Formats: sequence, C-alpha cells, structure tokens
Amino acid sequence: MKATFMYAAGDVRVEEIPDPVLKESTDAIVRVVRSCICGSDLHPYHSMKASSTGQTMGHEFIGVVENTGTEVTSIRKGDFVIAPFAISDNTCEFCREGLHTSCLHGGFWNDAALGTQGGQAEAVRVPQADGTLVAVPGITEDSPLLPSLLTLSDVYGTGWHAARTARVGEGDTVAVIGDGAVGLMAVLAAKQMGAEQIILMGRHESRTDLGREYGATDVVAERGADGIAKVRDLAGGLGVRKVLEAVGHMPAYEQALGVVRDGGTIARVGVPQYGDGQIGWPFFGRNLTLTGGPAPARAYIEPLLPGVLDGTVDPGKVFDRTIGIDQTPEGYAAMDDREALKVLIRF
Amino acid sequence: MKATFMYAAGDVRVEEIPDPVLKESTDAIVRVVRSCICGSDLHPYHSMKASSTGQTMGHEFIGVVENTGTEVTSIRKGDFVIAPFAISDNTCEFCREGLHTSCLHGGFWNDAALGTQGGQAEAVRVPQADGTLVAVPGITEDSPLLPSLLTLSDVYGTGWHAARTARVGEGDTVAVIGDGAVGLMAVLAAKQMGAEQIILMGRHESRTDLGREYGATDVVAERGADGIAKVRDLAGGLGVRKVLEAVGHMPAYEQALGVVRDGGTIARVGVPQYGDGQIGWPFFGRNLTLTGGPAPARAYIEPLLPGVLDGTVDPGKVFDRTIGIDQTPEGYAAMDDREALKVLIRF
Repeated sequence: MKATFMYAAGDVRVEEIPDPVLKESTDAIVRVVRSCICGSDLHPYHSMKASSTGQTMGHEFIGVVENTGTEVTSIRKGDFVIAPFAISDNTCEFCREGLHTSCLHGGFWNDAALGTQGGQAEAVRVPQADGTLVAVPGITEDSPLLPSLLTLSDVYGTGWHAARTARVGEGDTVAVIGDGAVGLMAVLAAKQMGAEQIILMGRHESRTDLGREYGATDVVAERGADGIAKVRDLAGGLGVRKVLEAVGHMPAYEQALGVVRDGGTIARVGVPQYGDGQIGWPFFGRNLTLTGGPAPARAYIEPLLPGVLDGTVDPGKVFDRTIGIDQTPEGYAAMDDREALKVLIRF
Repeated sequence: MKATFMYAAGDVRVEEIPDPVLKESTDAIVRVVRSCICGSDLHPYHSMKASSTGQTMGHEFIGVVENTGTEVTSIRKGDFVIAPFAISDNTCEFCREGLHTSCLHGGFWNDAALGTQGGQAEAVRVPQADGTLVAVPGITEDSPLLPSLLTLSDVYGTGWHAARTARVGEGDTVAVIGDGAVGLMAVLAAKQMGAEQIILMGRHESRTDLGREYGATDVVAERGADGIAKVRDLAGGLGVRKVLEAVGHMPAYEQALGVVRDGGTIARVGVPQYGDGQIGWPFFGRNLTLTGGPAPARAYIEPLLPGVLDGTVDPGKVFDRTIGIDQTPEGYAAMDDREALKVLIRF
C-alpha cells in the first residue's frame, strides 16, 4: 500500500510499504477512505531533523473496517468508522471521565514504541479497536458528509475542547487566536455554546470569512500590541472573558495574555512549541486561568455526531483542497504556503 | 504613632511617624486593634534592596473607625471593621463579579503611588472606605474572636480562594503544598467544600498537626521526587485532582506538577517568586489547568463571617505568637526562623 513519510523538514514522500496486518487480538485493520493534513503536521515539516528511516504521518482518518482481531466485539468488518487522533481503550479510569488522551492503555499514531503508523496511508492497523473507533451506521463511501465526519477525528473535537475547557457559556465574550482549521472550529464551538461576541484573530480573508459563517462577530487582522488594543476595544475595554488559543507558538500565548480580561481563561489547543512561559505576577496577579490540552476527540465524537449527520453544522467546509495520496507532498507545501486551509486526501 | 518599616532584607524597624489624616472624602481612619505578619512579608525580608526611606509594612488588620470622609456612608466612627488586603470600591465591574483585587479604582497597602501605608501600625488611612471595610457589629476589643476575624483580612480568604478557584467539591482528592498559615487555611477550606482526601505537604509537625485538626487526612513530609511518589501513592497512583499551592517558589510549582492527576487543577495562592514556568507539553499534554491568584478577600468576608462568629470554624488558631508593635522586628525573625507559624500584633 501507499503511505506518507517525512524524512526531514520539508521532505515528504509517498512510498509503497507492506499492507498492515493484525498484531494484537484487539486490533482492527481499517482501509482509509478519507484522510487529511493537520496544522500540527506542519511543526515537523518546519523542524524535523533528517531521518534515514523516515516517519509515517497522519492522525486523522475515516474508513471501512477490513479485518478485526479475535477480541474485538463492537466493530465489525464492513463498518464505516471514525478514528480519533488518540488511541484509547475507552474503559480505563481516564476514559470513563472523558479524558481519552490520558488513557492508561492508549497512545498516539506514528509511535514507533507502540508500533503504530499513520493515517495518511491507504490502510491503518488500529490498536484497541473497540475503544478507539466509532462506527457510523449508514454511511457510504460517496456520502457528502465525509469531510464533516473526518473533522471529528481531530479539528472539530479540538475546537470543541478549547471552548469546553474555557467553559464558554451563554453571553460570553470570546477571542479565538488563529484562523486555521482548529481556530475556525473553536469559533463554531463557541457559537454553539452560546457566546455572544466571538472575535476571530486572523489575517487570511478567505479563512476569516468562513469564520464569520461559523459565528465570528468580529475579525481582527492586526497582531501584537495593535491586535491586542483592537480586541480589548471591541470587548468594551477590559478584554474578553475567554481566549481560545489555536496556534501553539509563543506570540499566540502572549496575544492571549494581552486580550484576556482579569479573571478570564485562556484555553490552549495549539500544541505549544515552547516549554516555559509567563505564569508569574502578570498572569497570577490578574487571576487568570490557563487550561486546554490535546482534545479527547474520542469523547466528543458521539455528542457531536448528530449535528453533523443532520446537517445542523458543516465543519467539513474547512477542507478547501482535495488531493490523492500521491500528492501529499504537494498538500503539505500548499498548507505551509497558506494556499490551502486544510487539505483532504481522497482514496 | 508607631509604624513598622523595612529598610532592607532583614532590616525591620518600628518608627514614630505622624498620625494618618483623611486625604480624600472617601477615606476613613482606622485605629488598629490587631494586625499580623504575613508569609508574603518574608519575600522582601529575604530580598529587599536597601532603601534610605524605608517601606511601610503590613496588609492585614482589624480595628475601630476613628474618622470618616464626608462621602463615606456605610462606615461610621466607632465601627469595628475588617480590612482586606486589597483596597476596592466594591462597585466597579470587577468588584460586582467578586474580583476585588482587580478593582478599577482599587489598589494595595504600602503603595507609594497610591499614598497608602501599612497595617503593621497603630492607625491606617483607608481609601475607598465604603468599599474596602466590612463592619462587624457587636465586636468589642476584648473579643476572643479577634484572631479569627483577623484571618478574614487575608489568610482565610486566601486559603478559601485556592480551594474555590480549584473548584474543590464533594469527594475530591486534594493536595495542599505548604504548611504555612495559608496552606492550613486551604486545608480548612477544602474540608468545608467537601473534599474526601486532603494531603498536606509540610514538615513542621506542630503545623501539620494543626492541619490535621483543620481536616488534613494525610501528611507528607517528604519533598521532591519522594514527596511526589508518596502523594501519588496515597491518592491511588494517578495523583490528586486538585492541588492548592500555598508557597510561591518554583519547587512548589514543580511539586504541584508532580502530584496532580492528568486533567487536574493547580490553584496557586502563594505569590509566585518567578516569571516563567513549565507550561509546555508536560503541562499541556496532560490537560492540566492552572488557576488561582491574589484572593479577593473582600468578596469572601461576608460569606465566611458567619462561621467565624458562631464558632463553626476557628481559623485564628494559626496565630501561635502574640507581640506588641515594638516587637515587630522580632516577629519577622521568628517567622523567618520558623519558630512562629504566624505572629499576631496586639495594640
């Protein structure tokens, strides 16, 4: 089968490798129907050190179950399934609380230690298949809902996680930092949770236009001090109560500190590309709260699925380019150049 | 009148200065009946650069109103009052939300810019008297409740703030870092909020004994990796859901990161003696929440007062030494040497 590998920053290749096979009795093999490239895939695309063996890529996919291990009971051959970006048993203490990213027996895709490969490939071996996968009855491979269903692997759940951990509620004032797919999904989630004012910070007009469609009431293109001043002004002078940070770089955290109201909350869902950050008096003295983290996307698939299936929401609009598996190198380049918001891979 | 000044690290003096007078029509003059030394006063006691003019000290006091400005309406001469550690108008947008430390017209004691002096003195000019002070009818200067009433200036409210911002609830597992007065108050607050397990991290037996009296179910004297292992073990292996950090030094934050459960909350009320701290993947990846800050003690006086007045709680037990105003230098030394937990100044 074909699979995507990264060998170094900027060096993405599609290679022929053996089809995946069942290793554990709790595994399933999924033939991928749709996959995609994530904003977080751009982090290694910028920084990965050269590797002679390469690294498989991708952590978002939907597809059809081809085979299951003997212990798999809830997923069957032929099921159409959504795979979240973390593997989990869905039964441990953390999973029962909805924190599947901390599953005691879980892990992530593309983890050599765990023997997992990636979703940007024609097929994937899925550990803990009963826990990890969610079957969606009645979906066929030509369904117009496929893009939206794919967002439940990661970006919609991640945007939802930002708004949920920030405890966005009715009448809230919210700033979303970042107009990538996750930022736009955070806008959608904040809107669904009843936010009154949603200020989207981003400067790519086609993206912020989609953000307005998802519920942004204001768009601020400026960055730094100008951007902070504009957001605070729009929010009545004191800042916003909730900031959803969907980037992960230090300037975004600094932006968040600048726009948040005293007593407010910063929820991060962009994977931080830094270790230490300001949590001294400028943070503490204002009684700020910092929350967020990798989204337990698995926990959100079931609650968010009905809105996708009945068309209440259309998160799949974040995909603005579709490629085949052979074009993943071009897909990475297009996202890196900001020519594409989010690239869908069709098999 | 006599007032306490700090001139440099370790250099505390009591000096005769003019009695305070009304400056603004919203001021009151309070004759101090009881004051005290705070754990946070030890930070400058360790680090203050030499100053030729010195710095007034103290931010916790109770006393009797001697005079009021013409615009003061809710406080009258002769009232027995509690002064919280922050000045606030109690009417602005932040105060109405209970975040008096961010009052738009407020400030702190011992602030040259604001012209405020400190509570470790025989009398204090109180700006925004209507907002700042809380009168307690029926209290006389020989009341046995004075020590507990004084804790409402700061330490009881600060411990309460830790537990409240951490959202401690029924059945929770809590670790309290620090066996100073604030740590012990955090134990009391966690107990009042229904925590099931309260692990107090501290190694001063007389203090941890008082902590047990306030509700600690376990005491861990070890620090560093040993302390972390012991707390995690006591909490069933995965860590505690809520950490109340009542110290403010970096090792305490690191301890908090070590004992907290994935998905858990660290609430800091010890003033951080650092700027940057770990908020990268080791924090983010575990979906941790960081909250807390300076307590809006003003907001908590009214709700906590009934329990003090009817004897349900006895937070005043944190005072284990009583001195006169002339002995404040010895009081600082005793707290710094850990000979005294918290020093009461009697006038």
